[in-house]
Amino acid sequence: MLEASRVFSDYVRSSRDTKAPVIPRIDELDLTIPEKDGIGTAGIWDDIQTICGAATNTWSERFLYKLYASPTPIGVVGEALIGLLNNNAHVFQASPIGALIEDRVGRQLAELARFPVGTAAGLTFPGGSYSNMHALMVARNRRFPELKRSGFTGAMARGEWRRPMIFTSAHAHYSIEKAAVAAGIGLDNVVSVPTDADGRMDSHALRMLVEKALADGGAPFFVNATAGTTVLGAFDPIDEIAAVCADHGLWLHVDASWGGPLALFSSDDRFGGYRVDRADSFTVNPHKLMGVPLQCSFLLMRDGLAPMREALGLGASYLFHGGSPNVLDDVGDATMGCGRRPDAIKLWLAWRYYGTEYFRRRLANARRLALDFADMVSTRPPTALGHWRLAAAPQSTCVCFWFVPSQLGAHPTPQPSWGDATRLLCTRLNYLGHVLVDYATVDLPAGSLPTFFRLPLNSPHVTKETLASVLCAIEQTAKALLDEDPRCFDADKS
Amino acid sequence: MLEASRVFSDYVRSSRDTKAPVIPRIDELDLTIPEKDGIGTAGIWDDIQTICGAATNTWSERFLYKLYASPTPIGVVGEALIGLLNNNAHVFQASPIGALIEDRVGRQLAELARFPVGTAAGLTFPGGSYSNMHALMVARNRRFPELKRSGFTGAMARGEWRRPMIFTSAHAHYSIEKAAVAAGIGLDNVVSVPTDADGRMDSHALRMLVEKALADGGAPFFVNATAGTTVLGAFDPIDEIAAVCADHGLWLHVDASWGGPLALFSSDDRFGGYRVDRADSFTVNPHKLMGVPLQCSFLLMRDGLAPMREALGLGASYLFHGGSPNVLDDVGDATMGCGRRPDAIKLWLAWRYYGTEYFRRRLANARRLALDFADMVSTRPPTALGHWRLAAAPQSTCVCFWFVPSQLGAHPTPQPSWGDATRLLCTRLNYLGHVLVDYATVDLPAGSLPTFFRLPLNSPHVTKETLASVLCAIEQTAKALLDEDPRCFDADKS
Repeated sequence: MLEASRVFSDYVRSSRDTKAPVIPRIDELDLTIPEKDGIGTAGIWDDIQTICGAATNTWSERFLYKLYASPTPIGVVGEALIGLLNNNAHVFQASPIGALIEDRVGRQLAELARFPVGTAAGLTFPGGSYSNMHALMVARNRRFPELKRSGFTGAMARGEWRRPMIFTSAHAHYSIEKAAVAAGIGLDNVVSVPTDADGRMDSHALRMLVEKALADGGAPFFVNATAGTTVLGAFDPIDEIAAVCADHGLWLHVDASWGGPLALFSSDDRFGGYRVDRADSFTVNPHKLMGVPLQCSFLLMRDGLAPMREALGLGASYLFHGGSPNVLDDVGDATMGCGRRPDAIKLWLAWRYYGTEYFRRRLANARRLALDFADMVSTRPPTALGHWRLAAAPQSTCVCFWFVPSQLGAHPTPQPSWGDATRLLCTRLNYLGHVLVDYATVDLPAGSLPTFFRLPLNSPHVTKETLASVLCAIEQTAKALLDEDPRCFDADKS
Repeated sequence: MLEASRVFSDYVRSSRDTKAPVIPRIDELDLTIPEKDGIGTAGIWDDIQTICGAATNTWSERFLYKLYASPTPIGVVGEALIGLLNNNAHVFQASPIGALIEDRVGRQLAELARFPVGTAAGLTFPGGSYSNMHALMVARNRRFPELKRSGFTGAMARGEWRRPMIFTSAHAHYSIEKAAVAAGIGLDNVVSVPTDADGRMDSHALRMLVEKALADGGAPFFVNATAGTTVLGAFDPIDEIAAVCADHGLWLHVDASWGGPLALFSSDDRFGGYRVDRADSFTVNPHKLMGVPLQCSFLLMRDGLAPMREALGLGASYLFHGGSPNVLDDVGDATMGCGRRPDAIKLWLAWRYYGTEYFRRRLANARRLALDFADMVSTRPPTALGHWRLAAAPQSTCVCFWFVPSQLGAHPTPQPSWGDATRLLCTRLNYLGHVLVDYATVDLPAGSLPTFFRLPLNSPHVTKETLASVLCAIEQTAKALLDEDPRCFDADKS
């Protein structure tokens, strides 16, 4: 344990070094598994150091690749604690403390979401996709209760049946589609609702699509609104969407895996005014904007855990002995899983450690940095190498932009060749490994945007200097690529 | 970090104390979350000690409650390492080392399972239920490929459709039924196959039930065989089941969440001769018999990851950029989730540390203890308090038995009142908290057994002395209950 603390502390120190690579080169690694005797204490610390040295460095402020970032130290301690205790949050007696903490944190999150106090509750799932999938399953089985027993074929054999239909924005996370595949609903019954120019779901289009589906004999039952889309970070207009759902009796789920903490903690009206409480269920991933290590995802239910139990519970007697007045008994039966890591412990610990105010500050800082960075990109002076263009005004804490090499001219509107340049630059940049960034694209009413750089702002270690250095690194990479091949960015090249 | 190592080491020492409770009393706990400022470093170690003190003590050899047990120290280090690195195993670049290790461990497990080398591969899922569910989804979409796009309603609208049917033993884990609910197949289409007197699936009954389903116009497609049932620890006869599957073109999945390591590592022919390689997919949970902290579950696929990608992949372009020749790219797309903890790292680390031979010894020890314990129960002399009866010969490492209080007489066959006594004794025993054991029941061809004690043997800390002390504790509890109420066990009482 002492050795672990030394190795781990060294790792944190070296990872935060400004020269440390974000993606280390992995050369020859000996990953063989000993047939007979293990390497024991003598060799294992070398192994651990090898893994540390070969791991993607999420502690660096130059890890700007995905929606999660540097874990907080207390988060790591929480993770180690969960491993140490090896408690299981499926039945109360297997971990009373895990159940109590999960209940407490779930209720606190529900309160921040302005869900009804005392009724609303939440459970953790192994990631936002699973939280979203559970919400869909609960909504499906509540609307079509015969499915649990009869399945689709049994239910349909008994008479007229309408197609269960799901609505989600064109910019929403693909987990909704995966959940539809899992649920036997199929991709054809996931209606993609177009967005406005900012990437927010067009609620008029939603209403029309729902009404059309009804007119065509479909059975709309589930709308997924996103708070913080994966690429642009947009917040779908929840009040308008909730009105459509209320008019047609649809389950409203909010996938706030990314933007949820902004909605819960932010004092900025843009996010804090977001009326999550109009939803039936709500996913938030503290492993993203709150710095808890992967995974920590909560699914909050406005009406508590009862609908989950009803939809999915089987009450397997060998495990769930029931008969207890304790509502925290047997929560595992409300999920599609069985054994459960008590992930809430790490969020509780971090929340106790930092307090609510810290998260408000952290989120305000991320938002401010996004605005500053957007400003930095749009005002950065062009050079002989090229110029900079914002792809969209930052909706929350993602910044999307192009570097347009001079070879591609100075078009007022985005060109497909900008996308090729982005992919080329990004691939080389990430190969070099000093910064790790990502690219994406989206469809907007005016058409599909060429591939752009997408930087999520999250880690409190990121500063304006970090971001300026990323822009420099992109310019330097452009120069290096041009030095190798002066025609590398030419539009006719790709 | 230093403080963490001190607190954690103290915890391990005190948890292994022979007097330490397994379920501590939880009195007043302050779980409040600070509105404004956090408690910081000053208070957090008290919090951590509070949690440690209130947690269920899985390190104790007297934790004999569920199928997991004491985590190995290297497992805890592995868990902490995963938290520290905060790497994500969804796309290769987010964690090359995580992907390489997962691939390596998956192939090593597949090799032990005698799956075709070079083809078979595995991925981790957040628990055995999710592994089983993924296997079912893959099998469903492979057999009915139109479901991915059209869903059941679309597919059925296009013409004649037969009910997809699943077969699993009456003693199998309930996750198969949950998966059927999730998949839109429904509980009515899960055919429960009876077992023989030892709790092993009756393969003749399976064949008859499959043929009956076909004759009735159903579409059998998936058989779940269990290697290590949850209660009796039975191994379904895989060769006979595989023959039925081959004859009718059914997907054979083996849920070896519990017994898998015996099948993979044991030199005992009873388990080591188990031909896992006859299956299409195979779930094994190293977090059970291998002492890796929760969760660590592998789903192995005989034909590699391609069927997973085909069945579930959407290739969301914002995340999965594709175009790489690397087969380890974008493994997340092969799952129903998105972000993934690289759980394989902790198994790899433990395997490197201990070597294969350690696991063979550990498993042989667990099996030997089960046989010894069964012997101990059946030969333990009766006292004035009552006598002992085995509920079943131990199929692998679970021992199931009754303590029959004298008040209930000396019937040659199990009586319902024995079950009441078991529940009463177990509840009191667990309330006292010095040992934690569980009870269960099963249906056998001769009828349903009254509730019995079920002890899974797993932890290497358990000795014959531990087990003798459990039997003593049950007798003492019986005495204490009788002292309080001499009629507590009377058959007419319940």
